Amino acid sequence: MGWNFRMWSAAWLQMVCLSIAVCSGWVQGQDTKPNIIVIFCDDLGWGDLGCFGNPVIRTPNLDRMASEGQKWTQFYVAAPVCTPSRAALMTGRYPIRNGMTSAKRAVLFPDSAGGLPSDEITLAEMLKDAGYATGMVGKWHLGHLPQYLPTAQGFDSYFGIPYSNDMDKTGGPGYLAEVRKDPSYYPQIEHYQVPLMRNTQIIERPADQNTLTRRYTEEAVGFIEQNAGRPFFLYLAHSMPHIPLFASKQFRGKSLRGLYGDVVEELDTSVGVVLDTLRELKLDRKTLVVFSSDNGPWLSFETHGGSAGPLRAGKGTTFEGGMRVPTLFWWPGKIQPGTKKDLGSTLDLMATFTAIAGGELPENRKLDSYDLSGVLFGDQESPRQEMFYWTNAQLHAVRRGPWKLHLRLREAVNYGKEVELAKPELYHVEQDISEKYNLADKRPQSVENLLKLADEHLLDIDPHDDMLAIPIPK
Amino acid sequence: MGWNFRMWSAAWLQMVCLSIAVCSGWVQGQDTKPNIIVIFCDDLGWGDLGCFGNPVIRTPNLDRMASEGQKWTQFYVAAPVCTPSRAALMTGRYPIRNGMTSAKRAVLFPDSAGGLPSDEITLAEMLKDAGYATGMVGKWHLGHLPQYLPTAQGFDSYFGIPYSNDMDKTGGPGYLAEVRKDPSYYPQIEHYQVPLMRNTQIIERPADQNTLTRRYTEEAVGFIEQNAGRPFFLYLAHSMPHIPLFASKQFRGKSLRGLYGDVVEELDTSVGVVLDTLRELKLDRKTLVVFSSDNGPWLSFETHGGSAGPLRAGKGTTFEGGMRVPTLFWWPGKIQPGTKKDLGSTLDLMATFTAIAGGELPENRKLDSYDLSGVLFGDQESPRQEMFYWTNAQLHAVRRGPWKLHLRLREAVNYGKEVELAKPELYHVEQDISEKYNLADKRPQSVENLLKLADEHLLDIDPHDDMLAIPIPK
Repeated sequence: MGWNFRMWSAAWLQMVCLSIAVCSGWVQGQDTKPNIIVIFCDDLGWGDLGCFGNPVIRTPNLDRMASEGQKWTQFYVAAPVCTPSRAALMTGRYPIRNGMTSAKRAVLFPDSAGGLPSDEITLAEMLKDAGYATGMVGKWHLGHLPQYLPTAQGFDSYFGIPYSNDMDKTGGPGYLAEVRKDPSYYPQIEHYQVPLMRNTQIIERPADQNTLTRRYTEEAVGFIEQNAGRPFFLYLAHSMPHIPLFASKQFRGKSLRGLYGDVVEELDTSVGVVLDTLRELKLDRKTLVVFSSDNGPWLSFETHGGSAGPLRAGKGTTFEGGMRVPTLFWWPGKIQPGTKKDLGSTLDLMATFTAIAGGELPENRKLDSYDLSGVLFGDQESPRQEMFYWTNAQLHAVRRGPWKLHLRLREAVNYGKEVELAKPELYHVEQDISEKYNLADKRPQSVENLLKLADEHLLDIDPHDDMLAIPIPK
Repeated sequence: MGWNFRMWSAAWLQMVCLSIAVCSGWVQGQDTKPNIIVIFCDDLGWGDLGCFGNPVIRTPNLDRMASEGQKWTQFYVAAPVCTPSRAALMTGRYPIRNGMTSAKRAVLFPDSAGGLPSDEITLAEMLKDAGYATGMVGKWHLGHLPQYLPTAQGFDSYFGIPYSNDMDKTGGPGYLAEVRKDPSYYPQIEHYQVPLMRNTQIIERPADQNTLTRRYTEEAVGFIEQNAGRPFFLYLAHSMPHIPLFASKQFRGKSLRGLYGDVVEELDTSVGVVLDTLRELKLDRKTLVVFSSDNGPWLSFETHGGSAGPLRAGKGTTFEGGMRVPTLFWWPGKIQPGTKKDLGSTLDLMATFTAIAGGELPENRKLDSYDLSGVLFGDQESPRQEMFYWTNAQLHAVRRGPWKLHLRLREAVNYGKEVELAKPELYHVEQDISEKYNLADKRPQSVENLLKLADEHLLDIDPHDDMLAIPIPK
């Protein structure tokens, strides 16, 4: 017999030690690695939630989330349109650094062959390396060819639509013309051949958008339940309230704000379901939930677009209404409830999540990401003191502290032609929240300082090849 | 001896019965007659509080008041300028009914000889008759000759300024010109000879406006402490944030929003002091506190004016920004916390307070007041379904449900010349919160219904002699 008592007892001791190590590691992992959920809406305006001052849309779940957590009133995305905004969220880098903004195309389209370069490190990849289960539900819009899909960018699983819900339009009336005829216009799904995917497979086409918010929510709840025993990262990117607007039957006609309000109220319910799931599973005190939007409201669609509240303009512009988004951070017992006026950005989620998850920051590349955990969990001032407003591969504006300088603008409220301003315009965006009073002539020193900041920033940028304008060969 | 035992015991019994009656009456009075406090600001915009979506002004006390009480997001004053708005608050009647709106003058001025007619029944008179101690602190602006002062209109005591804090200007630079030169412009009190009064006496001239918010607060606290043992009504009408802006030293330069923000943050602190006083005296569960503003923000004064949030225009106009005001109702234990989208108006305080205080509604006159207590204390829908927008003795717009019809407008954003519209303009102010999309051509039936409503309303009006345009004989 090869096994004697000493050997057995040594083996037993080893096993016990290993068990303790594994268990304590597991317990410690539970303590030190919180779950992370990002709930990201599409074209939701700064002024669309009750807690951000909307007078008619009912958002009791988000209002409660705001009062239990932190409401950030000066939180930015890195671009005023979908694809570059999402690229910045995923990478912590201005999209000019990875080709996800283009002078030729605002975003990726179904005929685009490009996507987020695979050498970019996404939030999902960083967190996966840190031991997280990673799941994505919803709209991706960072490339729909197999090599660009979420499952190729660090997500264990994916359920959603690969680009905007208004793409692949194959017929039917013009949306805006119909809205102008009748603001309660309800589109037909047949006119939008957008595919619904699970991982890399199309499972439904056209996706039944009437039930998408509900199904996304069910998928999110399923992912949370499945991964309750280990740290997880869930990216829940709703397709709504981007036009064409769709709501479940039980929400239609229920809000005071028409179909747009119905849609936002369903999103609010979805947030409530997610947070309730966390509470029921007793995960609420170990989960950070971030709620935000990819850009401002699409004002061109009139009552089918949202509201930027008191902020100027909306989606597609580098005014505050285009890039400042309604943002909530929630982690009961860990985040001190309140309102934060500090600057922050979706760019900062990379450094913040890395710090919280004990991960490693992407190396060998420039990051535009600040760790906000000192603001979230303590009384520190935000390390972010400046913001760069990029769109269509051009730097349009810069902000440092309360001062914002517009270098170039668009002609129209929404996607107008890009124009260089004869002279830069200077706004104090804290005292003049609606960007009404150009103080450039009165504050030449501030103009000069911001021009210098812009120059320094541009020198720091090495633009990547344009990844949005690559067409699929026919 | 005239007193025998039977007489003595009968007298004793009578005394006991009387005592019981008095005591139970007193106790019941405590239970059934809550204290009532109205905190009324001057030119505070719908969008100036954190809980109404202001991104930079810190209002933690009002935010807490909102979360403990009810936030009303569709609450109106009856006129977009000071005097008529306050007349409506005090009487529950459109000011056209008592001469407090005029085609010749927007408000009362220091050279006006008129005021609120003494046969009008004010909130103070109604509540005094119902057994309340009544006190007013702050800006009156319903007549400054002795017969029109608060003490002649039902208030036991008065401390404040009789008209707007920018009146009696005797020199110094033009306010707006100075603001345009430097947004942090701080005025000198010497340039405004506005008097500070106690009851009917001028006690200080010029009033030191730097300390007025603080002194008003101290007076309010004193009144509450003095009257803690009996039902009281306190009308605390701040002079701020009307221009010229003044703040206590400790608040100056503290907000992100410049002097305007400093001023609002001091008002917020004042509200906190009042509510804390109620809590300390254990009166919080027997006191209804209403917070509101007399009209929208004075946008002409640029960064020295406030914000209407997403609402169109401001003070002096009958757009929503001019007449919809940030309103909170607070009564812990009695009011169900939440957000109300119901229509309500300062006009309704008369009927509501009458119901709450067990008072009697003014007789022999038309009232424009609805009892909102079913909305405040229960789940009833608001009895108010329509709103009439009067200014300068003209009906400018009417609203029923979500539909609003503009009959006439002003040329400019603020006090422009009055113009009759070629055609009335129709807005759905719930789906189109910023009054952008005129649907008159598409909804002729709604236009017709509202024109009929306007006609009916006008037939119901018997205009009073103009009380604002009476000059003091020289």
